[in-house]
Amino acid sequence: MSSTDIRALAQAARAASRALASATGDQKHAALEAMAVGLLGGGEPILAANQEDVAAARAAGQAAAFLDRLTLTPSRLAAMARGLRQIAELPDPVGEVTGMWRRPNGLQVGRMRVPLGVIGFIYESRPNVTADAAGLCLKSGNAVILRGGAEALRSNLAIAEVLARAVASAGLPAAALTVVPTPDRAKVKELLALHGLIDLIIPRGGEEFIQMVRETSQIPVIAHDKGLCHTYVDAGADLGMAAAIALNAKVERPGVCNAMETLLVHTEVAPALLPALVAQLAQAGVEVRGCPETRGLVPSIRPATEADWDTEYLDLTLSVRVVPSFEEALAHIARHGSGLAEAIVTADHGRAMRFLREVDAGAVFVNASTRFTDGFEFGMGAEMGISTQKLHARGPMGLRELTCEKFIVLGDGHVRHSQK
Amino acid sequence: MSSTDIRALAQAARAASRALASATGDQKHAALEAMAVGLLGGGEPILAANQEDVAAARAAGQAAAFLDRLTLTPSRLAAMARGLRQIAELPDPVGEVTGMWRRPNGLQVGRMRVPLGVIGFIYESRPNVTADAAGLCLKSGNAVILRGGAEALRSNLAIAEVLARAVASAGLPAAALTVVPTPDRAKVKELLALHGLIDLIIPRGGEEFIQMVRETSQIPVIAHDKGLCHTYVDAGADLGMAAAIALNAKVERPGVCNAMETLLVHTEVAPALLPALVAQLAQAGVEVRGCPETRGLVPSIRPATEADWDTEYLDLTLSVRVVPSFEEALAHIARHGSGLAEAIVTADHGRAMRFLREVDAGAVFVNASTRFTDGFEFGMGAEMGISTQKLHARGPMGLRELTCEKFIVLGDGHVRHSQK
Repeated sequence: MSSTDIRALAQAARAASRALASATGDQKHAALEAMAVGLLGGGEPILAANQEDVAAARAAGQAAAFLDRLTLTPSRLAAMARGLRQIAELPDPVGEVTGMWRRPNGLQVGRMRVPLGVIGFIYESRPNVTADAAGLCLKSGNAVILRGGAEALRSNLAIAEVLARAVASAGLPAAALTVVPTPDRAKVKELLALHGLIDLIIPRGGEEFIQMVRETSQIPVIAHDKGLCHTYVDAGADLGMAAAIALNAKVERPGVCNAMETLLVHTEVAPALLPALVAQLAQAGVEVRGCPETRGLVPSIRPATEADWDTEYLDLTLSVRVVPSFEEALAHIARHGSGLAEAIVTADHGRAMRFLREVDAGAVFVNASTRFTDGFEFGMGAEMGISTQKLHARGPMGLRELTCEKFIVLGDGHVRHSQK
Repeated sequence: MSSTDIRALAQAARAASRALASATGDQKHAALEAMAVGLLGGGEPILAANQEDVAAARAAGQAAAFLDRLTLTPSRLAAMARGLRQIAELPDPVGEVTGMWRRPNGLQVGRMRVPLGVIGFIYESRPNVTADAAGLCLKSGNAVILRGGAEALRSNLAIAEVLARAVASAGLPAAALTVVPTPDRAKVKELLALHGLIDLIIPRGGEEFIQMVRETSQIPVIAHDKGLCHTYVDAGADLGMAAAIALNAKVERPGVCNAMETLLVHTEVAPALLPALVAQLAQAGVEVRGCPETRGLVPSIRPATEADWDTEYLDLTLSVRVVPSFEEALAHIARHGSGLAEAIVTADHGRAMRFLREVDAGAVFVNASTRFTDGFEFGMGAEMGISTQKLHARGPMGLRELTCEKFIVLGDGHVRHSQK
């Protein structure tokens, strides 16, 4: 595929985005329903393409967890269809007037929610994400260019063919969604240069990849970056609750960005909490690394190094630090947190409120596990990812985050008079 | 000033931003009041520094309009102080909870408005902007690094000294605002590399400068770019209203981004509107350039070339095109508009609503002049600029646009259970 083809693909998406922007909620609902029906009825070629992807990935020596994420089954296709139907049922964000006020001169000024236009989405080798992203972008009135992991290319092309046909059958442009039809990595850089045709790039992936996208892109980027999440157990906390939350945040699914990497414990409660909790964690297969004070209480664990406080393990490993005060916990989080999610376990109302206000992260929790950081768990429907930056979207990105607000102004012949 | 100094300056701003983020509304109000009092009482050194700037700019051969924007007088200082007091009276955006809902499992999820952190603001040689920007950033809990035009450097340093002293007198960090103390252009590029210390760059300036910032910055950018604004006069419009709005949008202040550059007129009303309107425009000193149909009605004007439809004159020049339909007006705007502000003059409700929904711009007007595109006119108080992009902020940027929303989650020991 030549470089003109990538541009042509983006131009087709741009043209489609104009039709999508003025599509009604009913039209989009019908398209999403047709997409779900398409996946349920037309699964054979998708599963066949997926088997080829899985075989190639297995031959290339990919790990079992990778192969599991890559594999589609009839029940996973059914879950993708259910996801599309859930998106169909969400309220249409487009056209919402989020506020309107009257100026002293009688001018009415308001804000109206509108689609962004064309979204470039770069993600890992999980073909189910292709359907989620296509559904969210369509519902929010955007066209999307999908660039999943190379290992899932055959699956993604097969899924996109079914979905695009369904969109067209509902009277909307098939170019509403397009999979970049090549595994060539150079095409990602070409995509990132299409300022003016693409409005937003959403990359998911490792730190190095995100860094490359940030440095290369001439299009605004909202990255789904790393998650170095802390749980802080405050003096006076309910220690049963603290242990349950810490255990959940670490072991329920350690390989994801909203899992806990560092546990901070107030020195007053450390003796009562840590020996039993570390034993529970060890039993769950967690390797615990501790500060000197932690090791004073639980001598069997290995020492944490300075590098540990900045490491996203994404694994059954946890670093534990005893802190002398609430303030020191806040300072540790400010220094080492990645801004994804942070939690406090406390019984003190004032410190709960200060933690909520002062901790600088996309999601801040009181007495709950950071594992809830997720668009579905927050009640927003599916998500495109979790933004780890502050501009436009912070935390889970759902339909609203795929739109922007423009000003609308209604006058009656109003003209502006000069002021000095 | 060495490059370490720019980094040190940003580090001081970052430290100040943490104190500002947790400052109360009362503290910020007191600081803004002290800033206003400082400008009113301590104006002598500012005016003296400004006289040096103006003398140097005059010696360098700057035009009269430039010298006028650069010049400060006691009454302009008083206006700057009034501006700071107006900002003081606006509601504090920080800490606002913009929504909170309860999940089926009892978890409470909400959004809280918080400051962005440190803002880098790059602007033209208008020293009054220094006080506005310092006030808006302080009120929104952000630290700001100010980089005005080199010609205003002495004035800006003198203003910043007074303002920073006032901030400190109110118990907030003086590093809340800092003027980059050198005219060296290389320092702008150093500033744009400080990802992690600065959260947002807001540049105002010409197309070429904005392009450089976009390509160089490793920090998110919200640009105040060019404005190529249209006014479309629909079939059946009130022609008296249309003429008044067109005249206002073109001549009231032609050198600003929200002035009209192109007038589009439906062919049905062109004969009744254009001859008289072009005469009125000519009388106001406007050079009109027209499409063939316009010149058929007003033969005296010169022809518009293809380049005219893409030119932001910022001057008493206007291009006029007669269009055969509402759709063709929308298509012309989609092709040539810069996304700042667009207006329709119409008596037809359906077309007014379609224009509002379908035109892709930061501000869309029905029966009013594009000249109203301004934070103050929209009732938002002062503004940092007018965003011409879609992400995070679109249109005038006031206090709200200098903040972001984070998720806050209140539980009672909630842990997440695996789903399949």
